[in-house]
Amino acid sequence: LLGTPAKTFCCAGCGFCGKVLVWPYEMSHWLNLKIILEELLQRGHELTILISSRSYLFDYHNPSAFNFEVIFVSGTREDAEKKVNEFLDAAVNIMPTLSLWESAKLFQNFFLEATEQFEEVCRKAVYNESLMEKLRETKYDVMVIDPVVPCGELVAELLGVPFVNSIRHSVGDIIERYCGHLPVPPSYVPVSMGGLTDRMTFMERLKNMMFTLFFNFVLQQYDFQFWDQFYSEALGKRLCSIVINYMIILTEIWLIRTYWDFEFPRPYLPNFEFVGGLHCKPNVCLQEMEDFIQSSGEDGVVVFSLGFLVKNLTEEKANFIASALAQLPQKVLWRYKGKKPATLGANTRIFDWLPQNDLLGHPKTKAFITHGGTNGIYEAIYHGIPMVGIPMFADQPDNIAHMKAKGAAVEVNFNTMTSADLLSALRTVIYQPSYKENAMRLSRIHHDQPIKPLDRAVFWIEFVMRHKGAKHLRPASHDLTWFQYHSLDVIGFLLACVATVIFTVTKCCLFSCQKIGTGKKKKRE
Amino acid sequence: LLGTPAKTFCCAGCGFCGKVLVWPYEMSHWLNLKIILEELLQRGHELTILISSRSYLFDYHNPSAFNFEVIFVSGTREDAEKKVNEFLDAAVNIMPTLSLWESAKLFQNFFLEATEQFEEVCRKAVYNESLMEKLRETKYDVMVIDPVVPCGELVAELLGVPFVNSIRHSVGDIIERYCGHLPVPPSYVPVSMGGLTDRMTFMERLKNMMFTLFFNFVLQQYDFQFWDQFYSEALGKRLCSIVINYMIILTEIWLIRTYWDFEFPRPYLPNFEFVGGLHCKPNVCLQEMEDFIQSSGEDGVVVFSLGFLVKNLTEEKANFIASALAQLPQKVLWRYKGKKPATLGANTRIFDWLPQNDLLGHPKTKAFITHGGTNGIYEAIYHGIPMVGIPMFADQPDNIAHMKAKGAAVEVNFNTMTSADLLSALRTVIYQPSYKENAMRLSRIHHDQPIKPLDRAVFWIEFVMRHKGAKHLRPASHDLTWFQYHSLDVIGFLLACVATVIFTVTKCCLFSCQKIGTGKKKKRE
Repeated sequence: LLGTPAKTFCCAGCGFCGKVLVWPYEMSHWLNLKIILEELLQRGHELTILISSRSYLFDYHNPSAFNFEVIFVSGTREDAEKKVNEFLDAAVNIMPTLSLWESAKLFQNFFLEATEQFEEVCRKAVYNESLMEKLRETKYDVMVIDPVVPCGELVAELLGVPFVNSIRHSVGDIIERYCGHLPVPPSYVPVSMGGLTDRMTFMERLKNMMFTLFFNFVLQQYDFQFWDQFYSEALGKRLCSIVINYMIILTEIWLIRTYWDFEFPRPYLPNFEFVGGLHCKPNVCLQEMEDFIQSSGEDGVVVFSLGFLVKNLTEEKANFIASALAQLPQKVLWRYKGKKPATLGANTRIFDWLPQNDLLGHPKTKAFITHGGTNGIYEAIYHGIPMVGIPMFADQPDNIAHMKAKGAAVEVNFNTMTSADLLSALRTVIYQPSYKENAMRLSRIHHDQPIKPLDRAVFWIEFVMRHKGAKHLRPASHDLTWFQYHSLDVIGFLLACVATVIFTVTKCCLFSCQKIGTGKKKKRE
Repeated sequence: LLGTPAKTFCCAGCGFCGKVLVWPYEMSHWLNLKIILEELLQRGHELTILISSRSYLFDYHNPSAFNFEVIFVSGTREDAEKKVNEFLDAAVNIMPTLSLWESAKLFQNFFLEATEQFEEVCRKAVYNESLMEKLRETKYDVMVIDPVVPCGELVAELLGVPFVNSIRHSVGDIIERYCGHLPVPPSYVPVSMGGLTDRMTFMERLKNMMFTLFFNFVLQQYDFQFWDQFYSEALGKRLCSIVINYMIILTEIWLIRTYWDFEFPRPYLPNFEFVGGLHCKPNVCLQEMEDFIQSSGEDGVVVFSLGFLVKNLTEEKANFIASALAQLPQKVLWRYKGKKPATLGANTRIFDWLPQNDLLGHPKTKAFITHGGTNGIYEAIYHGIPMVGIPMFADQPDNIAHMKAKGAAVEVNFNTMTSADLLSALRTVIYQPSYKENAMRLSRIHHDQPIKPLDRAVFWIEFVMRHKGAKHLRPASHDLTWFQYHSLDVIGFLLACVATVIFTVTKCCLFSCQKIGTGKKKKRE
């Protein structure tokens, strides 16, 4: 039932064709952002994408509708890809075998290494006078930034261009909270990366509060202080960073990659727009897989993908997964690049790549086994397919927690799961009708919006171009200090008043009592 | 640039024609709500409006596209109109001459009298078995409620029908805060009826906090306890009303009668939709007034209306207003029903009624003198006309404070103003270009929405019909107690832990010191 807004506000309609500069991130982030950028292109805007020479997902050597502006840094694209694969292998296969302490240490190493790399890219961008001059001269109307990598907002500030963020969420919502002033009441808004839901027991609310405090502490220590100093140097002015002062506070519009079909209802601000699922589209007919799918008959098919990040599983894991799948009456399409497991059933086919959206939209699809990436989950919501979630890291545990809480998924623990666990989870989502019903309910909610998420995203980017910002949506809280923001000065003053009154009244009473006592004493004398 | 959404979600398109029951309020509230209801009618829904026999604005005797269901109560429509006029006269002419205490006392009298009348209407509705049975049998799909008069939500609950609220705001935002869980951080969100803006000095923030506490206290004492008891009796179950438990907490969607052109940016929840200005529309050509307007030449015209509530001014006031207007080079169209002032200039014409929207949209209109009702302000925003605000009561001072803060209005105090004040204010908004520029900026913001406010309002009412509610937008905070909501239990627990740790460490230290002391002593001995 999604309506498309009247095209009157598109750039073609209003005669306004703008220039858009993009600071993207790779992997699934790019897959999502690309959809917005392609729509902007189609509407006649001019797009330039700033990328580092190490970026391995952007094919900037070949002709493209996008202009690429390359920031040359040390290392090759192959090195970068190797690094990412090392991290993924560590996250998926090594970290689960380590103690919490060793695991945190390993993660910290990767994190510091990544920060170093981001810093190099940033330095090579903002201190490259000819590049900055060229960008300045182009007079961009808006920047679209993925704030998961720092620096985009610094470039925007140096160029004097208003910018829009596209984000799923930051670790512990810390960027949204501190830079966007998004309220996150810990009693019913689970902090991101905590794997909690909006309905928490006392212990879970305690955990949520502790997570919040922990993320505040860790990120301020290790990340924000570093970048604040870097930004201060680049801007030639000291940023007042009591809490953190990434230039992200200047964001005009936050495009959040979820919507209320997925998200738990929570407070937000008028410059936050929830555009989750903007990449989803109706399925098209499948050519080569159709025969296999049709051969499933009444039982239908199961689609299985752990995303393009997980290429290999240990042989043992691959084997027991395959043996679980072999016990299903359904046909299974499995996206997997590793060695073919010995236990692979006749009902299961392995593919290097799957047309995931088209498969999920196929009427024979009964379930989706997913690692819980936001893009994949949204395709399942769009088509109303129940899920078995095998989350591994980043936002995946959170995402699956959302789908579980909404009754559309069962979770299986990647590290401890057995063949039986996976099979039982699959049978549950396929044969217990509530899972399909809930997935369909989410799908109906997703489709029943007054305006499509992609149109909303593009609308607000164009709005920023048309109005040179969206200042009317920016809360005045940004002009307050942290203690004013929390009304601590007012509360302190009121408490001081109350204390003064109590003190004065007590003193007066004591004084009167004494007087009366003395009077009585004198009388007795 | 407003887009109209694809008509696919309208009732005609989706083959769903629903039944809507309406619990309205009179005066400007009705003028606004009527626009939504007429749109619903046009889309094929069936509408029934519940009104009391005392309602004097609804012409339920004559044929209408709406069905009216009349609740018969004591007193006549004339009595009701007289009461309202008495109140208005008191608010406009008498209260300003009284002390704060006398004024509060007079207001309290009116308030208690109104509560009595509302209670009668409610009692005659919910205890009228045949009426309730008839309504129950009709099987309404949704109720649209103006929560300024209690009872609508009780009727909805008794009928088991989901409901949508249409509201500008409640006194002190208390209904939105307690029943909607809308966050109202006192540091940058001015509480309603306080006349403050989002940028406050320390003293203003203190005032804002005090207002908040005051409204909490007063309304809980005088209003909510009364209605909670009434509702508990009618529902046959005790409502747990520690804070207030109007059934309004069950609201599916809150349709707020403002938007970010008017409102200060503030946190809100996904079940709040800001649909301000939904009644505005392009102006049509004026027939009879056109000659008079054209005779203004380059100077243009000023439109002056204190709304339909203020019919009479004191002779003195009318005279100095007229003499101020007479000094303008502009022509003035003044909506006024009182005696023609002696000082009326040749440039000023008095009318019983003005086609306000069409006049504000006229290219010759330079300024709008308004009492600051939300509907009128929105017409000025829609057409980009700067304002002189003469607020009197209710939300009017707030509304004018908003427009002043946004640089589109100058305020004149109704009680203390002189002829010179009014004239100076008019000259300011007409001849200082910033006022026109700001009004035009607000107008551009208003027109540049991805979807028109009226379409959004209707969309969400239809959504509630289609989905039998909008539970996916309801925050989980509604299932928490007030101390859980504010995380007081978690904070208390954490403080207790910290205290225990400090206590234990101190004890250990003291014990160790003592031990060491004793050891040394022994050594010395």
